[in-house]
Amino acid sequence: MRKILVIHGPNLNLLGKREPHIYGSVTLEEINKSLRKRARAKKCKLTIVQSNHEGEICDLIGKGKDKFDALLINPAAYTHTSVAIRDAIAGSGMPAVEVHLSNIYSREKFRHKSLISPVAKGSIFGFGPHSYLLGLEALLDLLDAK
Amino acid sequence: MRKILVIHGPNLNLLGKREPHIYGSVTLEEINKSLRKRARAKKCKLTIVQSNHEGEICDLIGKGKDKFDALLINPAAYTHTSVAIRDAIAGSGMPAVEVHLSNIYSREKFRHKSLISPVAKGSIFGFGPHSYLLGLEALLDLLDAK
Amino acid sequence: MRKILVIHGPNLNLLGKREPHIYGSVTLEEINKSLRKRARAKKCKLTIVQSNHEGEICDLIGKGKDKFDALLINPAAYTHTSVAIRDAIAGSGMPAVEVHLSNIYSREKFRHKSLISPVAKGSIFGFGPHSYLLGLEALLDLLDAK
Amino acid sequence: MRKILVIHGPNLNLLGKREPHIYGSVTLEEINKSLRKRARAKKCKLTIVQSNHEGEICDLIGKGKDKFDALLINPAAYTHTSVAIRDAIAGSGMPAVEVHLSNIYSREKFRHKSLISPVAKGSIFGFGPHSYLLGLEALLDLLDAK
Amino acid sequence: MRKILVIHGPNLNLLGKREPHIYGSVTLEEINKSLRKRARAKKCKLTIVQSNHEGEICDLIGKGKDKFDALLINPAAYTHTSVAIRDAIAGSGMPAVEVHLSNIYSREKFRHKSLISPVAKGSIFGFGPHSYLLGLEALLDLLDAK
Amino acid sequence: MRKILVIHGPNLNLLGKREPHIYGSVTLEEINKSLRKRARAKKCKLTIVQSNHEGEICDLIGKGKDKFDALLINPAAYTHTSVAIRDAIAGSGMPAVEVHLSNIYSREKFRHKSLISPVAKGSIFGFGPHSYLLGLEALLDLLDAK
Amino acid sequence: MRKILVIHGPNLNLLGKREPHIYGSVTLEEINKSLRKRARAKKCKLTIVQSNHEGEICDLIGKGKDKFDALLINPAAYTHTSVAIRDAIAGSGMPAVEVHLSNIYSREKFRHKSLISPVAKGSIFGFGPHSYLLGLEALLDLLDAK
Amino acid sequence: MRKILVIHGPNLNLLGKREPHIYGSVTLEEINKSLRKRARAKKCKLTIVQSNHEGEICDLIGKGKDKFDALLINPAAYTHTSVAIRDAIAGSGMPAVEVHLSNIYSREKFRHKSLISPVAKGSIFGFGPHSYLLGLEALLDLLDAK
Amino acid sequence: MRKILVIHGPNLNLLGKREPHIYGSVTLEEINKSLRKRARAKKCKLTIVQSNHEGEICDLIGKGKDKFDALLINPAAYTHTSVAIRDAIAGSGMPAVEVHLSNIYSREKFRHKSLISPVAKGSIFGFGPHSYLLGLEALLDLLDAK
Amino acid sequence: MRKILVIHGPNLNLLGKREPHIYGSVTLEEINKSLRKRARAKKCKLTIVQSNHEGEICDLIGKGKDKFDALLINPAAYTHTSVAIRDAIAGSGMPAVEVHLSNIYSREKFRHKSLISPVAKGSIFGFGPHSYLLGLEALLDLLDAK
Amino acid sequence: MRKILVIHGPNLNLLGKREPHIYGSVTLEEINKSLRKRARAKKCKLTIVQSNHEGEICDLIGKGKDKFDALLINPAAYTHTSVAIRDAIAGSGMPAVEVHLSNIYSREKFRHKSLISPVAKGSIFGFGPHSYLLGLEALLDLLDAK
Amino acid sequence: MRKILVIHGPNLNLLGKREPHIYGSVTLEEINKSLRKRARAKKCKLTIVQSNHEGEICDLIGKGKDKFDALLINPAAYTHTSVAIRDAIAGSGMPAVEVHLSNIYSREKFRHKSLISPVAKGSIFGFGPHSYLLGLEALLDLLDAK
Repeated sequence: MRKILVIHGPNLNLLGKREPHIYGSVTLEEINKSLRKRARAKKCKLTIVQSNHEGEICDLIGKGKDKFDALLINPAAYTHTSVAIRDAIAGSGMPAVEVHLSNIYSREKFRHKSLISPVAKGSIFGFGPHSYLLGLEALLDLLDAK
Repeated sequence: MRKILVIHGPNLNLLGKREPHIYGSVTLEEINKSLRKRARAKKCKLTIVQSNHEGEICDLIGKGKDKFDALLINPAAYTHTSVAIRDAIAGSGMPAVEVHLSNIYSREKFRHKSLISPVAKGSIFGFGPHSYLLGLEALLDLLDAK
Repeated sequence: MRKILVIHGPNLNLLGKREPHIYGSVTLEEINKSLRKRARAKKCKLTIVQSNHEGEICDLIGKGKDKFDALLINPAAYTHTSVAIRDAIAGSGMPAVEVHLSNIYSREKFRHKSLISPVAKGSIFGFGPHSYLLGLEALLDLLDAK
Repeated sequence: MRKILVIHGPNLNLLGKREPHIYGSVTLEEINKSLRKRARAKKCKLTIVQSNHEGEICDLIGKGKDKFDALLINPAAYTHTSVAIRDAIAGSGMPAVEVHLSNIYSREKFRHKSLISPVAKGSIFGFGPHSYLLGLEALLDLLDAK
Repeated sequence: MRKILVIHGPNLNLLGKREPHIYGSVTLEEINKSLRKRARAKKCKLTIVQSNHEGEICDLIGKGKDKFDALLINPAAYTHTSVAIRDAIAGSGMPAVEVHLSNIYSREKFRHKSLISPVAKGSIFGFGPHSYLLGLEALLDLLDAK
Repeated sequence: MRKILVIHGPNLNLLGKREPHIYGSVTLEEINKSLRKRARAKKCKLTIVQSNHEGEICDLIGKGKDKFDALLINPAAYTHTSVAIRDAIAGSGMPAVEVHLSNIYSREKFRHKSLISPVAKGSIFGFGPHSYLLGLEALLDLLDAK
Repeated sequence: MRKILVIHGPNLNLLGKREPHIYGSVTLEEINKSLRKRARAKKCKLTIVQSNHEGEICDLIGKGKDKFDALLINPAAYTHTSVAIRDAIAGSGMPAVEVHLSNIYSREKFRHKSLISPVAKGSIFGFGPHSYLLGLEALLDLLDAK
Repeated sequence: MRKILVIHGPNLNLLGKREPHIYGSVTLEEINKSLRKRARAKKCKLTIVQSNHEGEICDLIGKGKDKFDALLINPAAYTHTSVAIRDAIAGSGMPAVEVHLSNIYSREKFRHKSLISPVAKGSIFGFGPHSYLLGLEALLDLLDAK
Repeated sequence: MRKILVIHGPNLNLLGKREPHIYGSVTLEEINKSLRKRARAKKCKLTIVQSNHEGEICDLIGKGKDKFDALLINPAAYTHTSVAIRDAIAGSGMPAVEVHLSNIYSREKFRHKSLISPVAKGSIFGFGPHSYLLGLEALLDLLDAK
Repeated sequence: MRKILVIHGPNLNLLGKREPHIYGSVTLEEINKSLRKRARAKKCKLTIVQSNHEGEICDLIGKGKDKFDALLINPAAYTHTSVAIRDAIAGSGMPAVEVHLSNIYSREKFRHKSLISPVAKGSIFGFGPHSYLLGLEALLDLLDAK
Repeated sequence: MRKILVIHGPNLNLLGKREPHIYGSVTLEEINKSLRKRARAKKCKLTIVQSNHEGEICDLIGKGKDKFDALLINPAAYTHTSVAIRDAIAGSGMPAVEVHLSNIYSREKFRHKSLISPVAKGSIFGFGPHSYLLGLEALLDLLDAK
Repeated sequence: MRKILVIHGPNLNLLGKREPHIYGSVTLEEINKSLRKRARAKKCKLTIVQSNHEGEICDLIGKGKDKFDALLINPAAYTHTSVAIRDAIAGSGMPAVEVHLSNIYSREKFRHKSLISPVAKGSIFGFGPHSYLLGLEALLDLLDAK
């Protein structure tokens, strides 16, 4: 049974309460529920973590590299600033998919650069909570294709 | 029954024969076949066009705006240079999803800027032919959510 | 009798239906009608073409250089990206006036650079459909001043 | 009867004597005469001022906002450097049209950026003294359209 | 009684000992003391935290959003690098005031850009420990003005 | 008794009438009144001037250097363009505080650079008319600390 | 017998009539004649096409990849703007030589960047019509060297 | 007898009192005295003006163009910001020499660009008050060489 | 006996397992062992910490400033993004040496800028695990030279 | 009989031994031999020099201007850094052709700018040793065309 | 008796023969003659050298530092590229004056940056051969002022 | 016995006399003496050269490639400007270590870019004369590791 590490980056705990005109009104709990439901259907196991800490996200990825088959990550604000998470992903060897709720390329200029995209297999953004489900599906296809 | 316009941008006719280390060995024919199969399953109708002509792609989108419910587009090289296609998409009012076979953000610098992303609902890249299927699914979800 | 080539660039066929908060609700048909009316009053003859094709616009200008006295052009999206149209205008030797419906300098950053302005006699933008009438008048004055 | 404030920016007093290969040989007096003639025909009243002083131009616009219906301005050198005049125009609420004798986009690089364009309704440049007459006409159309 | 969260960013624990020619010789303890004194006079309650951890600062803001009326923050080094704290502030909905001991615009170039200023109500910098007292006063005025 | 020169930069005479969504509805008269009231309470004397003229502001500062103890200035548009006022402040030797009504760092890009901040003791912006009162207080503290 | 595809980019049909101070007075017909003469001497066969259409040039290269041994191309204006032609050349696998009549590096700044050079085997520019003959010779040497 | 207009730009009235580590302790009066002495020796007549006003400097140059043979100018802070003074000098037709007391290229970055240099015959900077005497000599040589 | 704090930055725990073509196959354990051996020979005492947390690294340096004589640091990914660690080092007053396993200037562009170098005494990079030993030696020489 | 100066820039003496994947395995001796052979066939006389010294190359060009009819130069590394050689070529008045063995535009970014191209008649690069023969041919055609 | 080292940089040996529209028709010999004449009048001794070699110029300055009182240098092309000459001047401790025949700030963009100006006492440019005489005079004044 | 070429770049002959606040008071002679002493201890042979000539340094490296096992170089000013020395090092195939006396990243901006670092095995800077000894040790370790 495939095991997937799901990481929600900083401030995603505020989801549903924070700036709904950008991020929608679905909460992180609801996203996790639908992710888990889809995972059951696809016969894979998810470990889901939310963290505001860049270092903790690096810890999770570094330690996870021997426990998980793949990584699904919404790096949120760290997308644009964290070389450390980029290095952690590249160093882990796990195939990774990057997802975003909003279309980062139609927002402020500083959000147009992703330090994570170059080390991810692929990226999906702009579809709200659905980005996660598409990301999970993409990740499973990548694992199947191995 | 939902009708979707699928546009393959320039040089995608060479797919499978051209630089397989970047674009893989699947041909455009095969991609179209799997897209059509998925469309039948999802009960929607696809009109698929490949064109190397920026103007023709604008024509298709401009005329398509009253005939289709949504647009699935891989703008290929025009991603980085075409304000005209960007304006056509914005002007058409159709929800659009942008897909790419390769991870454009891990390639040459000039491919890191998409003129299309800001007018698309969302974007998906890096998953090879699978990007199209994910894009179709994302588009149908967008239409369902209306 | 003076002969003037009028070229409407990409997506202007969508005028009146497309993003009226930017481009207004007047259609291209209506603009052409008022242009023709003004031309009759001024005793000049207009040939009006709309095209989404950069190459076709170059063809029109290249071939037009022996048939027309002057060029009135709204290069639309190609304003910002087409060296080919710039070269066609410079190469044609026809006096050219550039017009825009919207104030391109109060829109997105990439619209603040016109590749066409340096080879036009002058430019007029921001007056909606009226930009065309002012442009026609300016062009006739230029021809008179020769 | 509509009242229009016409402002000629710095060094335009030298017109006709200064660098005729760029600005032509028509003097400011002659431009004003033809402007006044056109204004009489159009039944509007002009107040015309030339000033080399950024602050004075701000004063004129700030005080003029309750006395005039619109502003016709050739900001000359201040086009490229004056945030103060930009703010004065935006703050005055008067519809403004920006005109230039020469084609500023075919001159030195530092003249390719106009701080004024984004707060003007529209801009007209490159037609020599005729730019003013076209600007006046554009302004009256704007007032008519209200 | 109004409740205000006060956050001191990274390395402010070293205050008074660290580079006194830039930051002065007052310690963080002394700043907190004078802040608390002023708060008592103004009848508001302060919760004061110092942290070197970007993630912890996000946690504090995210959790604080239902417990505090406003945020007074000296983001120190994170001013220039943290999109995460910016997003936390914007997401919290709390009115925030940014303060700095030194005049960041007369120091190294990379300190001239604040990622926090655009999401703060206002900013105060350059007045040493007094910046905090001015910031507290400004925050209380903002709350009064609601 | 301490004497303070207060300078309101260009277009601030329009305050209350000009773009209230940015600058609020308080007039300059009202700001001056509350400044004077606060000054009386603090036992200091204000000389308040508004000017749209960069040169005049330099004159005031240059001549004021022997008559005033300190400078409170809202350089408005000249914040971003005036090296002359910067040099005047630096040359005067008077401690200066820069204030702004709006948060200049959340507005257009060209307003994100202050030529004045590096020569001011400190800066305060974003608090509307209250910025002035905070600035006056900061200035008096600076004088007290000497 | 070796077969070579020769492509003349946009506006080269105007050659000899257009801006002779830059491009000289030789017509495209004359260039083609001397190219054909040289080809006969070198025992190779040329197919020569001129097109103003970016898409058509892509079509020609994409379809030509199985019919020709090599490509001689003067991309003219598309040198600086066409990622699509670049991708077509890279995708075709044909060895390509880029030629220009004028010295593009002694002209306007925007002509100093060639998107085509990196995918061509080599480039030759500045020798007027002779650039083509040198390019043909270079191409034949490349084929001989295989 | 040759007549020369000498213009001292903004804040030079503060000379000798202002930042002596940069500008030295000689006053403007003393500079003028030594300039006049040298002028008498060289049999030319000086008109010397100091102004903080960009517009006034333009006025002086514009009006001076028929009264003076040449211009000696220290544009001070306007060196870096005034297109208007640049245009006035270019428009006046008078040969102009630019002088600076300090070495502007070893100071802040924004002082490294002179808008005036390109329209001056030549420039002299870094020699303190002596820059003026060298400038006067240079100017007289230029007039002699005519 | 001299006491030295050794800090290994983010992801260095993965050493030997992670991207060996860049970082080699030596583990962090092995590096620490050889560092300790060298320290014994040089009669100094090492405290060695690895952390993925920017804030924790700041804590260590801030608290270490009274306990250690010097700092040997491989800031890894934080080299390029952490103003906080830079400020901590500058604030600690400890002499610091920066080391890197790889030659950061022959890798991706964003790794060519070190925020740490300007506050370190010196830097050593590109020698793999040997960089640490050289760094330790350099640090001891610095302490000897005091 | 035409006399041509051939200059090989820095490090070309290493040719054939140095980085053969970039520069090929042909030695400079062999290139010179084939150049001389071609020169005999074309009835012109070559003087060939290799130098690593920028100054020496300037000397050669400066002194050569009265002895040679034209210059064939591979400026190698100095292509990107030497204003002195550029000035020497421009000052010599000799027609010059620039050649490169490799395609400099498909290598490191800093090799994409040639200071020499703007003062050469034309440039040829990417054809290995053949670039020299094409360059010689181009130069002779230029001399013939005079 | 004061001793001054005069260095003419690269290609100045071509003076009078080379591009007279930029550099005039006076030869280096004539400049040296008038320099020597002026030196005799001023009772100082000149050693004059011309060199195309960056290294030789460094040698001259490095060795000259104990033999000469001051340096008069026209660094010509090395003005814009030589950190080595800059360091040599700074390291020599001799007061240096930089001169240029032409107005480097009205020529190509890459000539607008001088690496030498920041380490020179002052600079003089644009006065043709007269720049040298003014430079000599400035240098002697500097020595007198010591 | 291993043979190492040591190159001291431009102006290092001035060491100890030149700007001691940056480079210290140790002379080049003393550095060479301690290098030779260390070399004897390590049983390797040094050939030490100082040169101000970029071309000579290239000559030394080019000729040295068959005579030496490795290169220890302080490129001094050429670090920032010499593509030729970079190419010589890359072309020589010798392992090279770059050293600097000062911390180049805490000095002027133009010293923050090293053209040499990417072709060196590693770099060491900021430790004064000790940088050389560390560099020698690093080089010997590299040779041992082969």
